[in-house]
Amino acid sequence: MSKTRGRVTIPTDLDVISQTHEVMKRWGADAVRDCDGTDFPTELQEIDAKVYSTYYTTRKDNVWANANPDEIQQMYLMTPIYTAEGSSLSITLMKGLYPDMLTVNCRDDIKRWWEVIDRTTGEVVPTEQWSYDDTTGDVTIATVPFHDYTVSFLAYIMWDPVHMYNAVVNEWKDVEHQITFDVRQPKTRAYTMERIRKFIEDHPYVNVIRYTTFFHQFTLVFDELAREKYVDWYGYSASVSPYILEQFEEEVGYKFRAEFIIDQGYYNNNYRIPTKEFRDFQAFQRREVAKLAKEMVDITHECGKEAMMFLGDHWIGTEPFMEEFATIGLDAVVGSVGNGSTLRLISDIPGVKYTEGRFLPYFFPDTFHEGGDPVKEAKVNWVTARRAILRKPIDRIGYGGYLKLALDFPEFIDYVESVTDEFRTLYDNVQGTTPYCVKTVAVLNCWGKMRAWGTHMVHHALYYKQNYSYAGIIEALSGAPFDVKFISFDDIKQDASILDGIDVILNIGDADTAYTGGEWWLDTDIVTAVKKFVHEGGGFIGVGEPTAHQANGRYFQLANILGVEEERGFTLGYDKYNWDEHDHFITADCKTNSDGNKEIDFGEGKKNIFALEGTTILRHIDKEVQLATNEFGSGRGVYISGLPYSFENSRLLYRAILWSANSDHELNRWFSENYNVEVHAYVKNGKYCVVNNTYEPQETTVYRGDGSSFSLKLEANEIKWYEI
Amino acid sequence: MSKTRGRVTIPTDLDVISQTHEVMKRWGADAVRDCDGTDFPTELQEIDAKVYSTYYTTRKDNVWANANPDEIQQMYLMTPIYTAEGSSLSITLMKGLYPDMLTVNCRDDIKRWWEVIDRTTGEVVPTEQWSYDDTTGDVTIATVPFHDYTVSFLAYIMWDPVHMYNAVVNEWKDVEHQITFDVRQPKTRAYTMERIRKFIEDHPYVNVIRYTTFFHQFTLVFDELAREKYVDWYGYSASVSPYILEQFEEEVGYKFRAEFIIDQGYYNNNYRIPTKEFRDFQAFQRREVAKLAKEMVDITHECGKEAMMFLGDHWIGTEPFMEEFATIGLDAVVGSVGNGSTLRLISDIPGVKYTEGRFLPYFFPDTFHEGGDPVKEAKVNWVTARRAILRKPIDRIGYGGYLKLALDFPEFIDYVESVTDEFRTLYDNVQGTTPYCVKTVAVLNCWGKMRAWGTHMVHHALYYKQNYSYAGIIEALSGAPFDVKFISFDDIKQDASILDGIDVILNIGDADTAYTGGEWWLDTDIVTAVKKFVHEGGGFIGVGEPTAHQANGRYFQLANILGVEEERGFTLGYDKYNWDEHDHFITADCKTNSDGNKEIDFGEGKKNIFALEGTTILRHIDKEVQLATNEFGSGRGVYISGLPYSFENSRLLYRAILWSANSDHELNRWFSENYNVEVHAYVKNGKYCVVNNTYEPQETTVYRGDGSSFSLKLEANEIKWYEI
Repeated sequence: MSKTRGRVTIPTDLDVISQTHEVMKRWGADAVRDCDGTDFPTELQEIDAKVYSTYYTTRKDNVWANANPDEIQQMYLMTPIYTAEGSSLSITLMKGLYPDMLTVNCRDDIKRWWEVIDRTTGEVVPTEQWSYDDTTGDVTIATVPFHDYTVSFLAYIMWDPVHMYNAVVNEWKDVEHQITFDVRQPKTRAYTMERIRKFIEDHPYVNVIRYTTFFHQFTLVFDELAREKYVDWYGYSASVSPYILEQFEEEVGYKFRAEFIIDQGYYNNNYRIPTKEFRDFQAFQRREVAKLAKEMVDITHECGKEAMMFLGDHWIGTEPFMEEFATIGLDAVVGSVGNGSTLRLISDIPGVKYTEGRFLPYFFPDTFHEGGDPVKEAKVNWVTARRAILRKPIDRIGYGGYLKLALDFPEFIDYVESVTDEFRTLYDNVQGTTPYCVKTVAVLNCWGKMRAWGTHMVHHALYYKQNYSYAGIIEALSGAPFDVKFISFDDIKQDASILDGIDVILNIGDADTAYTGGEWWLDTDIVTAVKKFVHEGGGFIGVGEPTAHQANGRYFQLANILGVEEERGFTLGYDKYNWDEHDHFITADCKTNSDGNKEIDFGEGKKNIFALEGTTILRHIDKEVQLATNEFGSGRGVYISGLPYSFENSRLLYRAILWSANSDHELNRWFSENYNVEVHAYVKNGKYCVVNNTYEPQETTVYRGDGSSFSLKLEANEIKWYEI
Repeated sequence: MSKTRGRVTIPTDLDVISQTHEVMKRWGADAVRDCDGTDFPTELQEIDAKVYSTYYTTRKDNVWANANPDEIQQMYLMTPIYTAEGSSLSITLMKGLYPDMLTVNCRDDIKRWWEVIDRTTGEVVPTEQWSYDDTTGDVTIATVPFHDYTVSFLAYIMWDPVHMYNAVVNEWKDVEHQITFDVRQPKTRAYTMERIRKFIEDHPYVNVIRYTTFFHQFTLVFDELAREKYVDWYGYSASVSPYILEQFEEEVGYKFRAEFIIDQGYYNNNYRIPTKEFRDFQAFQRREVAKLAKEMVDITHECGKEAMMFLGDHWIGTEPFMEEFATIGLDAVVGSVGNGSTLRLISDIPGVKYTEGRFLPYFFPDTFHEGGDPVKEAKVNWVTARRAILRKPIDRIGYGGYLKLALDFPEFIDYVESVTDEFRTLYDNVQGTTPYCVKTVAVLNCWGKMRAWGTHMVHHALYYKQNYSYAGIIEALSGAPFDVKFISFDDIKQDASILDGIDVILNIGDADTAYTGGEWWLDTDIVTAVKKFVHEGGGFIGVGEPTAHQANGRYFQLANILGVEEERGFTLGYDKYNWDEHDHFITADCKTNSDGNKEIDFGEGKKNIFALEGTTILRHIDKEVQLATNEFGSGRGVYISGLPYSFENSRLLYRAILWSANSDHELNRWFSENYNVEVHAYVKNGKYCVVNNTYEPQETTVYRGDGSSFSLKLEANEIKWYEI
């Protein structure tokens, strides 16, 4: 039995009524919920707990959708790039797309809303030079031989991508495809407001309407074989329709072009340096979505219910860190917790009464089957998330799926019981305070707070070979004792005093992406503000190809701060003599390999980086610099080629931040000598904890805030609380 | 004793008079020469051989140089990039430069010829905002805080860089620094013409004046520690003076800027996509240098001597593959042979009566010392060069250094004896014909024939980590049975019919360098011409980051031909399913490793390359494609990530060329099954040879031109000649 109660949500279903009571007691749960594919039992309607109910604003009503085909949600799509072999080219729009998911929209004026582009010249093909045949599904273009062409077109979403995903993954047979309707359009909008009222009326026992987000699915498309073809958790291309685009034109005062969304086929993904037009469109969507979502939330409140939003699926336009979000008036946000970064993506959201994390594993057959090890998965998930919770706790934790499956794993029930107690304890200890922050660091990119904790993500927290070496930095920060800010070039441009109070700036990623900034580094306001910041004592940590853009005799525009450059062939003529490696404060805790070199996992690392004169190389591999430091005025620069998340690397980053902030002497404050153990202090509450992040016992020396220390042994995963 | 005589040059000296006769006989030499640091013995003046004499047009006359300080040769230099910390910045021009080598030129109007540039904005700082103090050597600039600045200035070359190099390397003590004077300037020009006449008069026994090139040293600068600081064998920055720059202005009709030469500190090295202004300057230099060199050559001929040019040192402006070169009227060119590419760099030169290769090792103490193994070095050099000689022979071979040192190594004398005989035999067999070419291939870049065989070179044939994976292709081609053309984007732009008769185009190198072309791939004339060429059956082989420039939804602009793209973050959202490796004609001779994968050395390779749908992957490593093929119309594309030179890789390239030219069925013609052995046919002369490129015996099956075959065993290095 749990020692305490509250802050925990569990799933239920028709077949687990008594067990729901049992698990509620064991885990101290105070809320129950239905899930996709479960029903809420009438027997539990009077239970002593809050009842959550999922609600889908945009689907599960094909009668409406079929009756209003003009208001089915649309998305912009671009065909692949085809080469014209002669003076005419026919392109089948739906080639490579799952036929049941999309239907080409030729109801609206295709000559207004579609674009045929000559991708050799970048110019739009005049509309009189192409035509669409609805019977064949082909666009035929009068072409210049050997030029490349694409067609950008609108299609109706005839099968909700999340519903299709679930159907494909779970091999559902003969399921009716749920059509996505567009709540932004006039008839559906009116209908929707009635629909939510009716839903609430029909479910009087429900306390919390858990909106499966609001109106627009992130970009998700499937190919002919029903395989995922394109996915972008941040994608705005499925939030369009001529109806709203005309409103957009009116608001911004210039003509809309399909290319604003298509973006050469890159669909404005977060690695692209955003154009003004796309930022305008996002801002428009944020405002309009917030307005409409507020209408639904107001109805929810009017009916005496709480409104909770799931951060996922149809979340586009509800950017939680942007100011419009708070105007929606939501009571709560819930989201899936894949790691520390995604925890902070939820727990840092301002403007709601509480946040809730949905923990892994879901009670689904993929984990909860004979021979499965749900305890292991739960431990990894909990320990990974706990680092971040200790910095900025979510207010509640919860689980999803089929409770029945979990009941077959008593060890899992036991483990989660301990987790729920541990969570409540730490929540009580941490509550209401900002934990002690050793330094204030700012991640600088084109997105700033809009992509706080989500930098480098593509499909939520999924691994990509090209992002883990950068995302590792964000993951390390999610549980580190720093005040972490996400700032954009625009922020600095508008007011450079945003850098006041920041100790260290980080610029992380590949050249000419939104994460490093590309051409922004040619903006004199930006570059002088950052150089001044460092020169006066600030720290600058660059990871990958920081500040990189080829111009003015430089690739790394802040090479003078970072002390390194990338060899792109243009400087082969310069002799390079600086290749000695040095011991350093930053690498003091790194393991040394048998060759006497520091053994550091730089992930994908970087090739062709060399050190300038005077730079201190900490590690190069085969004459390619991976880690180096440099001084600039009173400030310091650190170059890191890449840093996947690990406890070792987290420590390396910690030391790099301290060193670059001229604070190496402050190391032994609220600090554990052993990097597998971390210390967090809640000075206002008079508490601090020491936490073992590993699955083995650990020994360490713990330093308090005054520099005094003591030795400590911790059990696997153990967290110990102390009074200050 | 040699069986035949001729086509060989040997060095001599005062101390080896009788041995000179002896070696002449043994090697069948018909020419003797002096060297830097040797003197020609009077006793040999009547020898039955041609006598070469080195001649230095620009140095070894400090009396003249000191009397005419205004006509000392100058070079443009740029300081490092400095950041202004406040509103004023002082830059010491000579910091980081060897003080004895250079003297700042403030004799000419510094406000006209120097440039102070704000490297943050790229703008020129008005001349009234900076001043130079000749006593401190500092330029002081009124600055914008935290902007970056450089000073571009002119300096006199007070110590000839080659002379300095020799002095430093050989640790010469108390040597008078030879000053470089500028033959292009009026007084020195007149004096020089007298000087050469006098030299010829004083050396009546000399038959061949061997010009140590003509007027302008390639870029070579040393740092404070007398270490090489910057080198570019192709660099034009040491060929300038206000005197000639005013002529340049008159010719091109626009104002000269220091930046035309400085190029942001990159000095227009060959990896930079050349600007119009730099190409104009090169053309101007070619014309002017040719004009003046012709004057000297005419004098040489008038005096009854031959004129030979050494391709090296002060060779700038004498671009041997450009049309001005032939107008000089030289009898011969001699150059150092480091490998097959540098052999072709000499042997392919048109417009001279004969070419000569200086073979390695030089008879210097670094090789010819006790315990040294000059035979080994000679063997490697000969076998490497022989591949190329068999395609396009030089007319003579020769050696340099101190003959006395070689005499202590009788095995070396023996080996070279065999080499000289072998050379004469193959020269006789090959003479006057073009060997059978299986295909015509064109290397396409920004330089075309101007950098024929010199693509990717920095300091002649030296290894750089960033170039060997590309230079390997050129080296393989230097000895392969192909007609190799070097064409430029300009060539195609001017007349696309240049592609007629070409079977395969190669585009080799890193993105946005002159070797792949960068923005040229946005030129519709270029891109349609190349696509048409391939579509109609041509081959296209891309190596590294071919056709790469970020634009129009593509990084590899010819991705549709190559079938691959580079992941730069912008396409992470696209699912990539094409990862299967395939057996292929191209890799049929590659070794297979224990995992069953093809073991191919891609050198530095490339990261983040993925295959498009329909592309055939031959090899990927950890989901990074290294080798792939694709079809485009009737043509074929091949992608290779990099290909250092080796016999195995040479074979891979051979097969790739055949396959991409739709000629896989033609493999067994003048072909050796064993890739260590090559076959060259001289159909017009009725001869062919089979040559073992290795130092071990080899067995193979040899295919004749009609496809008939026979087995053959070859001794180490052996070459066998047959009648057709």
